[in-house]
Amino acid sequence: MKALVRLLGERKVLLGQAAQVYRYDAILFGQSPLAVVLPESTEDVVKLVRFAREARIPLVPRGAGSGLSGGAVPLEEAIVVAFTRMRRLEVDPVSKTAWAEAGVVTAEVTEAARAFGLFYPPDPASFRTSTIGGNLAENAGGPLCFKYGVTGDYVLALEFVDAEGEVHLLDRRAYDLAGLLIGSEGTLGLITRARLRLLPLPSGSQSLLAVFSDVEPLAQAVSEAIAKGAVPARMEFMDEACAQAVEAYLGLGLPPRPLLLVETDGEGAEEERDLLASVLEAHGARVQVARDEKEAEALWRARRAVSPALGRIRPKRVNEDLAVPRSRLAQVVEEIRALGEAFGLIVVQFGHIGDGNLHPNILFDPKVESEERVWELAHAIARVALKHGGVLSGEHGIGVLKRAFMEEAVDPETLEAFRRVKGGLDPWGGLNPGKVVP
Amino acid sequence: MKALVRLLGERKVLLGQAAQVYRYDAILFGQSPLAVVLPESTEDVVKLVRFAREARIPLVPRGAGSGLSGGAVPLEEAIVVAFTRMRRLEVDPVSKTAWAEAGVVTAEVTEAARAFGLFYPPDPASFRTSTIGGNLAENAGGPLCFKYGVTGDYVLALEFVDAEGEVHLLDRRAYDLAGLLIGSEGTLGLITRARLRLLPLPSGSQSLLAVFSDVEPLAQAVSEAIAKGAVPARMEFMDEACAQAVEAYLGLGLPPRPLLLVETDGEGAEEERDLLASVLEAHGARVQVARDEKEAEALWRARRAVSPALGRIRPKRVNEDLAVPRSRLAQVVEEIRALGEAFGLIVVQFGHIGDGNLHPNILFDPKVESEERVWELAHAIARVALKHGGVLSGEHGIGVLKRAFMEEAVDPETLEAFRRVKGGLDPWGGLNPGKVVP
Repeated sequence: MKALVRLLGERKVLLGQAAQVYRYDAILFGQSPLAVVLPESTEDVVKLVRFAREARIPLVPRGAGSGLSGGAVPLEEAIVVAFTRMRRLEVDPVSKTAWAEAGVVTAEVTEAARAFGLFYPPDPASFRTSTIGGNLAENAGGPLCFKYGVTGDYVLALEFVDAEGEVHLLDRRAYDLAGLLIGSEGTLGLITRARLRLLPLPSGSQSLLAVFSDVEPLAQAVSEAIAKGAVPARMEFMDEACAQAVEAYLGLGLPPRPLLLVETDGEGAEEERDLLASVLEAHGARVQVARDEKEAEALWRARRAVSPALGRIRPKRVNEDLAVPRSRLAQVVEEIRALGEAFGLIVVQFGHIGDGNLHPNILFDPKVESEERVWELAHAIARVALKHGGVLSGEHGIGVLKRAFMEEAVDPETLEAFRRVKGGLDPWGGLNPGKVVP
Repeated sequence: MKALVRLLGERKVLLGQAAQVYRYDAILFGQSPLAVVLPESTEDVVKLVRFAREARIPLVPRGAGSGLSGGAVPLEEAIVVAFTRMRRLEVDPVSKTAWAEAGVVTAEVTEAARAFGLFYPPDPASFRTSTIGGNLAENAGGPLCFKYGVTGDYVLALEFVDAEGEVHLLDRRAYDLAGLLIGSEGTLGLITRARLRLLPLPSGSQSLLAVFSDVEPLAQAVSEAIAKGAVPARMEFMDEACAQAVEAYLGLGLPPRPLLLVETDGEGAEEERDLLASVLEAHGARVQVARDEKEAEALWRARRAVSPALGRIRPKRVNEDLAVPRSRLAQVVEEIRALGEAFGLIVVQFGHIGDGNLHPNILFDPKVESEERVWELAHAIARVALKHGGVLSGEHGIGVLKRAFMEEAVDPETLEAFRRVKGGLDPWGGLNPGKVVP
């Protein structure tokens, strides 16, 4: 590793104890890195890749480490490439675009764009700490993605360094290599910067909370509202157990019932909110409309409190990430609830219901409950989604956690095609080995 | 070819004279096909690919043959796969999606969806004859694409048959192979069907015509309107020569000046039209607002008449397809106009100006004017776009016509990455050889 320090300078290389912090992401502990490199430019990345290829040391790219599938975790002896110092950000209000380096924090893009009446829609839960590079690698979604789409939908151009150390600047034409890199979790190339599309800030927003007696009418109401033309900006579901957890944490007076939180925005936000309210009520919901921004803020506090609220119940959790057809949602939620009961483990469920995104969370205490059982349950939960025509990874990526499930979710011919693409772009196999493709 | 007839049945194989019609697309004449196969199902495609691989005969996929870059034209001895008999179409109003086989005509998707208040936005000029498979292969755009995006933005899942005859059913998760197939012009796999996203029909539309004295203020006005938040559904530019050609054909009273045709739709369509009108007028335009649907229809007749109007002036034309930064549009249009003059050839220019898409058309009579000179001019025009930071292929694809220009437009390392991806997915090189990658 001394040669690496000579190549890049001491300031850019962490060794020994200082490198230990880079073993994990938000969900998984990995191997100790041989070194951590903090590149400050694309040229640094090029130098690093050439060094690593020569020395046959794998590279594991990493943003803020807030990922939930182990994508940024080293599984074997490797150099971690932490992009957090590559933070140049340039907003062009005329073309409504921004050039952002991989280490730019997601929320900073909208903060910089707001001065021009613009915003960057993708909003993963961790958007105040996560980076654009990490979001691109996982093709991150978020509550706004039902209306506005996911990270990849906002990428106009992409720069990446390939496994040989060559720099590519891609638009989305001819072979869409940029699209292939997006969501590939650093296994096909190291994304260094991207040109992002910005949208005009919507003119206003309206929020409501709807309380249902059951998940079945809730799912039906959502489907009917969408069929009638509603395209809310955010539509968040919580099951009974999740509502209870949030209530125990915040004391807002939420009933222990399945809940729906909805936000509409833009021209016609009020009409859209009223349409939603009437459809939800027709399906038996008790609807509470926020009369002003303060009331809206209070409603959304409930959603933001989910993570800390769950942390109070048990010290650890496995956060599943599935997408199921909305027509199957009620049955999926019920089967998963029953599975949790059968395993004797606490399971709470919530998600961005507009696109059927569901996050069953298994809460546990590793001192008391067997982690093996937890993973067995996690696997059983994933199979429920697959059985009902769902898919793995609504938005958290495959990483390590769902790699094994890929064999069930993807047919063998397509996995073989994945491997051929991986072999074509990473001939020496040095880019984030062990991720995505089993 | 007798074995092929035995394998698929006489009805599905055209030989000899009957196959000749499949030599060309809307722009280019190719080699006589060895045979034309008209598959009726994915299984037919699988059988065909296995046969072709065994016999080492290349395959050239084809939709309606309305392409403008030669993508569907055989360049060597090959079997043409015409998908026009694979026309199953199924609209699901609940999930707002449609499964469409490759041979479904683009316009049929919206026709079927309209009954449910839905539509399919991508609208290439040929959408009444072109097929979904062809649109996917070229990642076709159209006038609506500034507001609504291109074909690939509407694909939720994709089925394709690979070079070995394996069937893949892909969503857009993990490695986005579906996204890679879209726009790859049949060189990476044969697309057999896709699940398309549908949108609610917008509530109403408003149109206007703006006449400018020059292209410079027109381009500035468009940029300013967009900066102010206007997102018109359609925004079409015609240069002076194009306006003259349309006027000579239709006699609508259009002045020989640069024109802009604009349509707004959805909630707030009137306010958006008024915003546009005031910005355009502030830049010196004479604006004519359509007072009702009939007047709007009359305005848009002018745009639809472009192709037949140009056909009257000279029997043949080369239709270029570029995208340039809007800030450079005026200069690009002027340089291209001057080039046409210098070459002594008629050049008219029009395009979807919202995203800087420009179609310079060279009109010529092959009996009088040298085709070599025409192609020389076409190349010079492409170089003007590249010089100003533009790209080849706004929406028509690369095909054969722009393959040679790829060397100038794409850096050698990225071309090498393209070749590695091609090699990974088409190891025997049988899929539409000679297209896209030089």
